[in-house]
Amino acid sequence: MSGSFAERLSAAVATRESQVVLGLDPDPARLWPAAAAAADGPGAPAERAARAVTEHCRLLIEAAGPACVAVKPQLACFERLGAPGWTALAQVVALAQAAGLLVIADGKRGDFPPTAAAYAQALAGTTPTLAGEVAGLGADAYTVNPLLGADSLAPFVASEAGVFVLVRTSNPGAADFQDLELASGGLVWESLARLVNELGELRPCGLRDVGAVIGATAHTHLPRARELMPNAIFLLPGIGAQGGEVERLAPAFAPGRAGGLPSASRSIADAHREGGAEPAHAARAEAERLREIAWGLAAEQAQR
Amino acid sequence: MSGSFAERLSAAVATRESQVVLGLDPDPARLWPAAAAAADGPGAPAERAARAVTEHCRLLIEAAGPACVAVKPQLACFERLGAPGWTALAQVVALAQAAGLLVIADGKRGDFPPTAAAYAQALAGTTPTLAGEVAGLGADAYTVNPLLGADSLAPFVASEAGVFVLVRTSNPGAADFQDLELASGGLVWESLARLVNELGELRPCGLRDVGAVIGATAHTHLPRARELMPNAIFLLPGIGAQGGEVERLAPAFAPGRAGGLPSASRSIADAHREGGAEPAHAARAEAERLREIAWGLAAEQAQR
Repeated sequence: MSGSFAERLSAAVATRESQVVLGLDPDPARLWPAAAAAADGPGAPAERAARAVTEHCRLLIEAAGPACVAVKPQLACFERLGAPGWTALAQVVALAQAAGLLVIADGKRGDFPPTAAAYAQALAGTTPTLAGEVAGLGADAYTVNPLLGADSLAPFVASEAGVFVLVRTSNPGAADFQDLELASGGLVWESLARLVNELGELRPCGLRDVGAVIGATAHTHLPRARELMPNAIFLLPGIGAQGGEVERLAPAFAPGRAGGLPSASRSIADAHREGGAEPAHAARAEAERLREIAWGLAAEQAQR
Repeated sequence: MSGSFAERLSAAVATRESQVVLGLDPDPARLWPAAAAAADGPGAPAERAARAVTEHCRLLIEAAGPACVAVKPQLACFERLGAPGWTALAQVVALAQAAGLLVIADGKRGDFPPTAAAYAQALAGTTPTLAGEVAGLGADAYTVNPLLGADSLAPFVASEAGVFVLVRTSNPGAADFQDLELASGGLVWESLARLVNELGELRPCGLRDVGAVIGATAHTHLPRARELMPNAIFLLPGIGAQGGEVERLAPAFAPGRAGGLPSASRSIADAHREGGAEPAHAARAEAERLREIAWGLAAEQAQR
């Protein structure tokens, strides 16, 4: 990894003509049929399932990857297979990077500063050990949870990787705390946004290395989020299955084509369940559909 | 695992006459000397370091475990060794449970409901896969982050394991968001506390299965926290190295002897660095010192 995340992402968006992030949330009971054979052969159930998960992700990356700029593996979906799941995760990271895709590790970690530093080592750094240096996952960026405050984010921000801070998520319960009104005015999520805007360096591409997660179903918040974080990259999960529509995301692209990253998981991987097409073809078509809309929105935004 | 977490913890506290939680935050560059030999032999650095981490934790559990009721492995410290680190984590969970200790997996997870469900599978459940059912870590309880709201906590609360929700943490940055004043009155952390008080069942032992993480350095918040969550089990990290003093924790024990769980990591594992004693002896002595103080506080509280 070399260069800042914002610059690397901007270059990748320009080259690949895509802002779409392929979410990888493999459910080991519902993998693509073509991946199932990888579970044959020796090993405990976790090992066999993990092989099939890797193969499922490989096929998905092969099919939909060309229309995308990054993948976003959901760490929980791998961790539930234990050590073999973590091996699968590392393999998937390598496969995605070999295909020219950036990797955003979606683990939403957040902890006391020394522990946050250990998570940064695990995801995108290295760890000194009595047996020599151990490399982490090698993700290009990761998602983090800011509840523990600025000092808990510092070790993440200090790492070379890009950081996406949860600001306003897309689940119904997001309103429970993120939308509470503060005595000083504004909402809790706006105060999270203000902190994000102070973190990370502003790069020549017009973007900062520290971005924000804004649920795509929370698109009504986008104009205000952009006002508070004019140069942050927005990671926009929840397209498709969660009800987010990529057409609504225009404000994300105000600072540039790489300003918004619409992310879709099930709506791509499960596209064949709607239309009946072969999984790889359906996934490719859906990713390409999202790519075209997002690319068009960004182009419109650039002409304003 | 059978029975509710609150009941199982209450029974364990009574049997072991301890509320102390042994934090396991192994730093693979600073393990006990007696653990280093386990890194000899074949394997990649991560595998060799992971073996030594397991051995370090085994020795620590053997030394300090008898004075404790539970261990709290810090997931980040294992994840930074990748798949071998996850194997070490699973081994440490098994070693602790074999020694009669409960296991609180400290990962502070929090995510959209379907992903939260995957984390619950990973930590304390099982996952259906195309190759058969895969067991998770088998933790007795785990820590979670509530920023995403009530729906994101539901899959954790629905699991059989105990849940500790971050309410007021012990790092300096905790004040950044947790202490913000709300327009409706009160602080953000108090509103987190109110949610916790509505979750989980109240058991005959007088405690709920859903507890709260309250940093031990935030002890000035304890009386108010107890008011808002009269039956929650408080997990109280930050004793020792982070500056928390177990003497200040009396309000935690108001609902019963198992109402407060002071947790210490470095102050036990590194006790020998202060006094010069052999690591195992120093760790045992420090854990026993904390145990006596906490047990005495709880007894005083019971007589009120």
